[in-house]
Amino acid sequence: MDYCEAINKLPGSNENGLYGKNCLKTWDMTDEEIISVARGACALKALRDNNISPKIFDSGIAVSMFTKKDSGMELAYASGCDLLGLTIIEKDRKLVNSNINETAAMASYMADSIGICESDFIEKSSRYIKRISDSVEESQKNGVINEKPFVLNLGSDEDSPVQTISDLQYMASRFGGIENLKGKKIAVTWAYSPDGTRSLAVPQGLLSLVTRFGMNVVFAAPEGMDLMPGAIEKAEQNSKDSGGSFKKVSTMEEAFADAEIVVPVNWAPFSFLEKRTELSAANLGTYIDLLEHELRENNKEFIDWEVTEAMMEKTKDGKALLLHSLPVDVTDITCIRGEMTAQVYGANLTSLLSEAGLRPYVIAAMIILAKSEDPKAAFKTIAERAMRRYF
Amino acid sequence: MDYCEAINKLPGSNENGLYGKNCLKTWDMTDEEIISVARGACALKALRDNNISPKIFDSGIAVSMFTKKDSGMELAYASGCDLLGLTIIEKDRKLVNSNINETAAMASYMADSIGICESDFIEKSSRYIKRISDSVEESQKNGVINEKPFVLNLGSDEDSPVQTISDLQYMASRFGGIENLKGKKIAVTWAYSPDGTRSLAVPQGLLSLVTRFGMNVVFAAPEGMDLMPGAIEKAEQNSKDSGGSFKKVSTMEEAFADAEIVVPVNWAPFSFLEKRTELSAANLGTYIDLLEHELRENNKEFIDWEVTEAMMEKTKDGKALLLHSLPVDVTDITCIRGEMTAQVYGANLTSLLSEAGLRPYVIAAMIILAKSEDPKAAFKTIAERAMRRYF
Amino acid sequence: MDYCEAINKLPGSNENGLYGKNCLKTWDMTDEEIISVARGACALKALRDNNISPKIFDSGIAVSMFTKKDSGMELAYASGCDLLGLTIIEKDRKLVNSNINETAAMASYMADSIGICESDFIEKSSRYIKRISDSVEESQKNGVINEKPFVLNLGSDEDSPVQTISDLQYMASRFGGIENLKGKKIAVTWAYSPDGTRSLAVPQGLLSLVTRFGMNVVFAAPEGMDLMPGAIEKAEQNSKDSGGSFKKVSTMEEAFADAEIVVPVNWAPFSFLEKRTELSAANLGTYIDLLEHELRENNKEFIDWEVTEAMMEKTKDGKALLLHSLPVDVTDITCIRGEMTAQVYGANLTSLLSEAGLRPYVIAAMIILAKSEDPKAAFKTIAERAMRRYF
Repeated sequence: MDYCEAINKLPGSNENGLYGKNCLKTWDMTDEEIISVARGACALKALRDNNISPKIFDSGIAVSMFTKKDSGMELAYASGCDLLGLTIIEKDRKLVNSNINETAAMASYMADSIGICESDFIEKSSRYIKRISDSVEESQKNGVINEKPFVLNLGSDEDSPVQTISDLQYMASRFGGIENLKGKKIAVTWAYSPDGTRSLAVPQGLLSLVTRFGMNVVFAAPEGMDLMPGAIEKAEQNSKDSGGSFKKVSTMEEAFADAEIVVPVNWAPFSFLEKRTELSAANLGTYIDLLEHELRENNKEFIDWEVTEAMMEKTKDGKALLLHSLPVDVTDITCIRGEMTAQVYGANLTSLLSEAGLRPYVIAAMIILAKSEDPKAAFKTIAERAMRRYF
Repeated sequence: MDYCEAINKLPGSNENGLYGKNCLKTWDMTDEEIISVARGACALKALRDNNISPKIFDSGIAVSMFTKKDSGMELAYASGCDLLGLTIIEKDRKLVNSNINETAAMASYMADSIGICESDFIEKSSRYIKRISDSVEESQKNGVINEKPFVLNLGSDEDSPVQTISDLQYMASRFGGIENLKGKKIAVTWAYSPDGTRSLAVPQGLLSLVTRFGMNVVFAAPEGMDLMPGAIEKAEQNSKDSGGSFKKVSTMEEAFADAEIVVPVNWAPFSFLEKRTELSAANLGTYIDLLEHELRENNKEFIDWEVTEAMMEKTKDGKALLLHSLPVDVTDITCIRGEMTAQVYGANLTSLLSEAGLRPYVIAAMIILAKSEDPKAAFKTIAERAMRRYF
Repeated sequence: MDYCEAINKLPGSNENGLYGKNCLKTWDMTDEEIISVARGACALKALRDNNISPKIFDSGIAVSMFTKKDSGMELAYASGCDLLGLTIIEKDRKLVNSNINETAAMASYMADSIGICESDFIEKSSRYIKRISDSVEESQKNGVINEKPFVLNLGSDEDSPVQTISDLQYMASRFGGIENLKGKKIAVTWAYSPDGTRSLAVPQGLLSLVTRFGMNVVFAAPEGMDLMPGAIEKAEQNSKDSGGSFKKVSTMEEAFADAEIVVPVNWAPFSFLEKRTELSAANLGTYIDLLEHELRENNKEFIDWEVTEAMMEKTKDGKALLLHSLPVDVTDITCIRGEMTAQVYGANLTSLLSEAGLRPYVIAAMIILAKSEDPKAAFKTIAERAMRRYF
């Protein structure tokens, strides 16, 4: 899809549901809104690849709040904002004892975007992002700020919208459009990693999103490796509504059988994350270490949940598209035993790296959609003025 | 005041006393210079609110040196510099053993602004900022740098000019101009906070500044909560010179009585700050902890220095304007007992947050005044070219 | 040399050997390429000093990866990139266990430059930079990225090309051109510093570079203070090839005798650096502390390797040009006993600081040369459009 085609399909004046909104989770967005983000990302990538600058801000800052370092998503946010002309300012923040109103106001005064990544605490992380977002809206209503910055969840305890919409757009680009994903079999399965403590945002966000587009989703995880209550039920309901299917199986082998897309993901079980949140609230650091140690010991039972060449052979024609949100734990490269073998990693490296490369464009597209009443007109102006990014 | 009016009152060619200067403390500045900064800030805010970009630098960096994290002032500095087109670069620095000449030169090569926040050490902090500023001037004189960056005190042991000029401009915006502050009663009083170790920069800077504009200033602090020697005398002298008044009382109640503006501030007594500076120079960390502990224990005696609804009732018509430099310690929100109750905080939130929102504009105005021989012409060019900030 | 003259001597279309390349060490570059960088730096400085902006990027990021803080080089990189319109994004990285392909890809997606400083590990540091550079090229070949960022060594275990080309250009500016360096006597000598653990990058890089331009190089270091195997032999060979000379002497006095340029440098011996690399790989932190302690104790024997006024008197007419890569350890200023006395430092401060001021321009020149097929045309466009840096 060239950028003209992508631009023409963007919402025009009064059709843009994201205008003035924030993005906290994909299940707050309509299908049309999600598709607009994906199309906007696609147009932005094509524009930049053609040396056309989509800079729409002459000045302005994009505030970045990450509790834990996540250099991939941090770079994606920085790059996407820079593409539009916004300057990244990192703001340290502490979850506990902070004054939400002041944090939100300080970050808002001259910001056009506030990106928050906070995934460590079950429920609390999402609530924190929501409260910042509410406080920013309050500040605008009260005239404290003249213009509302866009508030973006860059990874919480429950969803990671930038990651999952990038996945969606990458699949779309490989299969000729989001509409072509209908009926495709996708396997989302737990995979072993020596870390083992990752959040539920990616698996939950992905299941919730892909089931909305008519895909045949097969989900596999070891016994006890539960998502948040309700996550599976939502995926099932989405599948029914979209005319797709959702099936839970108990091994990676079953999930991979005949799949056209496979997504190995590592996550920690909900019960562990809930317990860790409690211990953290009680400042019991040593017990958190113990809890994590026990999880890792327990996980060794599932060391065979690894994507091997033999496992890939079971997929459709032996050549399913392999997705991963990165960083990935690769056997013999980053650890002794990980989510996939070095062979599988090497054979799929180009796809894996290309997929992650869409994140900055998804972020930039979201900002344009949230800030422009008429995104189609904004994109057309960008294309027509044809300002060179590099002279 | 719209931006045209504010711009017309700015100094023109050869009238601008800040041109080529630095800003270390407000008492080095004339009243006219301070008013120009306030007017410049006002014009910049109006321009940005009208989507007009005041970007005057095509490239250039603004160096940021903060010893302690102060996310409010850091964001203000970053935002204000970004508004003019400068890119923030954070520079780590250590006070002890550093080579001032090299620090200053490294920071100067391509910088248009150097912002320094160093407030922990009585006398030493100010001297450090002064030495950086002198060394930068020396580098220009010797041809090491082609253009002198503006050196700005973002908070020292003795003054915080950005904060206090923002306070002044905010009061002016609420009372219809700086000239209308004459004769207004303002209460500056110590308030209890569980931290208790804050610097003297805000109370001293504020007393020194507001007494210059004919205000009726009432100051209250618990016994022993002394400012630097000479601070009170200077405020008294300023009041005499400006036709205002200065009174010291011994309770918050007396200070608040009939006040039109109230400013609760927490600070540590001079004797404590002096002692801590000594211990720090001697690397006696554990004794610093002990000293701070004793201060906090002692401060509990003054736990009733809290702005309550009843206290606010004593002010003029029960509705004085409440100012605070933020972050503020709020009872039941950030701590068990703080500078003000949650009710007072909630009722005044819009003012409190709006005031802090002026800081980026004050910083940007200072930079334009320090870098432009003819600020009026510079602002007129900005207004006339009317470049859109967001397209 | 004004900028027009410098621009006219830059390579035009198809003559630019740096186009599409990276810069890992100067010995991978031809003399012509090095001279082009120096000329580009010279032109960029003159343009900026004349308030002409050489901004060639409308957006784009420059990734900065520093293992250890080096605020001088970090600011130089940030300033140089900002001058061209690139935004600095700092990326944390860990040498061990990181996945090179992902690190390189994450840094590449929207970057036009990746600057890496990693000097702690003998062989490993250089290999790390090389692997990042190879992986970036691979990503471009595979279509993961559309445009290859320029990968720049900002200081490794073996070379520091930005520093040494800045030294070269600074000498050229003082002696009327690089061609005039032929036959000049330059003394490169070890000097005492209480730290003592600095890398070999500067002394090796400098010897390797200046011997290529026909200089008469005299090298002095205490017994045992060895460079990497082969470094001296390479310098000797370069001298033969360029018609200069290379001599090793055993005292600073001998080296300084009649020298026109003197360069005191502190470094740690190769054997120490190799041992420390081993201990670090084995995670033996306490033994590293012990090893460094022993080195420092041993170095006290060479405390007289200090540049004093008496030592400077021995140079040609007593007024050799003194160069240092900064930060420098100065007796009585930064330490009790250092590389030079406070008198020598004070007398040469302008030169020392001016030299370091060239680094941002060298970096910016490298980026333009690496990104423009026809740098002469790019510079001409910059000069002709004459966009003001500060309005």
